[in-house]
Amino acid sequence: MHIVHVHIRVKPEYVDQFIEATLDNVRNSNQEPGNVRFDFFQEIEDPTKFVLTEIYRTPEDADRHKETAHYLRWRERVGEMMAEQRYGIKYRSLYPDEADWK
Amino acid sequence: MHIVHVHIRVKPEYVDQFIEATLDNVRNSNQEPGNVRFDFFQEIEDPTKFVLTEIYRTPEDADRHKETAHYLRWRERVGEMMAEQRYGIKYRSLYPDEADWK
Repeated sequence: MHIVHVHIRVKPEYVDQFIEATLDNVRNSNQEPGNVRFDFFQEIEDPTKFVLTEIYRTPEDADRHKETAHYLRWRERVGEMMAEQRYGIKYRSLYPDEADWK
Repeated sequence: MHIVHVHIRVKPEYVDQFIEATLDNVRNSNQEPGNVRFDFFQEIEDPTKFVLTEIYRTPEDADRHKETAHYLRWRERVGEMMAEQRYGIKYRSLYPDEADWK
């Protein structure tokens, strides 16, 4: 299992456009055959901050995600919206056990 | 939906004990009637860092979690293992839509 939390902070004036562009990416990413989950959360205390919780079956499935039309379209659209460089943190799952992921 | 990511860093000598104590809490938390998800991840780059991804149907369900025997046992056991104060970040879900959570 390949788990990444991508942390994003956008310029305040782009919050609505960022959400719209990201929903397009997230809906399509959830349809990828190697995807397990791809959730999209907004911080309550600071609505300019977001996290994408991406879970793919294998690292290769995550690599393929970065070649899809929806990811490339998203990356192009949101580039100027970033308030700082986004970053991902990789995790291993201790619970659920890797075999039990749905 | 009530979503919190709890970020934890433990003292290196306690990593194994922390995992054991937390698995007990996480397994029981997943059985609570108001719980939707309660995952437990370890950072790949720094194995002393963890995140608990807690999703409850309502804030009241999350409050009840903090009154359970398994949570209180966990809090007691892990107190001395913390390398720094743990903190939670609250989120709203943009995807899946709040109505679609399973």
